[in-house]
Amino acid sequence: MTKTNSLKLLDAVMAAPGFPKSAGMRVLHAEPGRVSLGLPRKPELLQFAGHFHGGVITALADQAAGAATTTALPEGRIGVTIEIKVNFLSPADGDELIAHATVLQAGGTLGVATVELFTKDAKSERRCAFATATMRAVDLPKPFT
Amino acid sequence: MTKTNSLKLLDAVMAAPGFPKSAGMRVLHAEPGRVSLGLPRKPELLQFAGHFHGGVITALADQAAGAATTTALPEGRIGVTIEIKVNFLSPADGDELIAHATVLQAGGTLGVATVELFTKDAKSERRCAFATATMRAVDLPKPFT
Amino acid sequence: MTKTNSLKLLDAVMAAPGFPKSAGMRVLHAEPGRVSLGLPRKPELLQFAGHFHGGVITALADQAAGAATTTALPEGRIGVTIEIKVNFLSPADGDELIAHATVLQAGGTLGVATVELFTKDAKSERRCAFATATMRAVDLPKPFT
Amino acid sequence: MTKTNSLKLLDAVMAAPGFPKSAGMRVLHAEPGRVSLGLPRKPELLQFAGHFHGGVITALADQAAGAATTTALPEGRIGVTIEIKVNFLSPADGDELIAHATVLQAGGTLGVATVELFTKDAKSERRCAFATATMRAVDLPKPFT
Repeated sequence: MTKTNSLKLLDAVMAAPGFPKSAGMRVLHAEPGRVSLGLPRKPELLQFAGHFHGGVITALADQAAGAATTTALPEGRIGVTIEIKVNFLSPADGDELIAHATVLQAGGTLGVATVELFTKDAKSERRCAFATATMRAVDLPKPFT
Repeated sequence: MTKTNSLKLLDAVMAAPGFPKSAGMRVLHAEPGRVSLGLPRKPELLQFAGHFHGGVITALADQAAGAATTTALPEGRIGVTIEIKVNFLSPADGDELIAHATVLQAGGTLGVATVELFTKDAKSERRCAFATATMRAVDLPKPFT
Repeated sequence: MTKTNSLKLLDAVMAAPGFPKSAGMRVLHAEPGRVSLGLPRKPELLQFAGHFHGGVITALADQAAGAATTTALPEGRIGVTIEIKVNFLSPADGDELIAHATVLQAGGTLGVATVELFTKDAKSERRCAFATATMRAVDLPKPFT
Repeated sequence: MTKTNSLKLLDAVMAAPGFPKSAGMRVLHAEPGRVSLGLPRKPELLQFAGHFHGGVITALADQAAGAATTTALPEGRIGVTIEIKVNFLSPADGDELIAHATVLQAGGTLGVATVELFTKDAKSERRCAFATATMRAVDLPKPFT
């Protein structure tokens, strides 16, 4: 996919109604094979101790992995997650969550991406999680073609 | 933990402000070592194709795994996730998402749970995902003791 | 695949030169969607503390997951692992390692299986590990067709 | 752990009877937080198609992750694997398997490492797998103290 078309598709997917938009995910950077997303803190994204919920961290990792894989696919295809694995390394207690996804492999039908996640506030940016996701390439559904 | 205390803690954690409450998670069943949670469909929980978002599925699996592990711990302790792995088996396109978590092992400091996830509508209930989570036991934070 | 053909293929794969045969893996049970394998203890399969090595446990889980998935595929196809995840639950310190694999899902090109692993001696049989594997269906290589 | 003591322990563990020694694993590089291991091809390490067996790849990843984590722990402690996850990215069809492990996090009782695996022959070195492992720190068993 060209960089321009990747970005258009990425923007369209992120702007569609659903969890990514409702949660407040935003694209920080995108190039073929690499995408970074951010998600600012808000109360409805946290767990009982006041940190980002593990599921929300996974959602950002998943979205970033899917986006990065999609940029490495041919036009008209999108990556959907077949499995994801996340290690939570430290409390995600900052003001924003940042996910940097990198494609390890993208073939005709399958792709694998890793995602490094950081939690950031005025003082510092700390690694808080690490994810690996396996994606399958499928045809883009109608509204996005 | 006794069944009564487990349930009290589980209710308190689920009722605290944050993602589980905002998303609409509810306890369907709880006994020591086994917890089932439900999450009704709403637009802000979906992905671009109109199915439950993978991160939301993971959040429900994570919450159920943590709850099931916590019921198997001594009083005053709660399970926090150190890693979770989810396989997405079919589109989560029903009206509700159901997670059944079972503790495989709970020791002094670590626990492991598996979670079977189903998507349910008037017609049927279909398996849509399978998760494994490793939890660490920590002291309950203040508001819950 | 018919039960007869599954078993023939499984036997042929296990009898081929390589790690499964050298290690001493044997088929305990096979039916479409479910395969159990055993691996007797020997010194060259252990780690520094005298238990089965984690990689050897994974090898048995992988072999069982692949075999179970293959029995659920059409004739002429075999399941190869695209990813595997194992939780080690207790020391694998028995005289034999047993793996029970069950297919969760088998589609045209992808399959997912879970594997429960036990370590067994004269006294008891104890759960020692749990695995999940994602497989891809490929055409059988020449010697097995 | 000092670099000298790490290396001594690593050598002692690798030289102990068991799978790593029998398979032929060797230390290529070690410094605190980073260890590289190699494993030359031999027939009894392969699967039905003549590539390194997935379990053997996992064993090398596991050994490298444990070694890297151990170098980051205090004296007298060793990392044992509580879970490992491997993505197989391309056939491991070279003459040697190489694993580069890096510690992502090492705390008092838990550690996480990632492992990049390559398969190498006269022509090239190709990435063939990627692993993540979670380790628990335990006291060194007697023969190694």
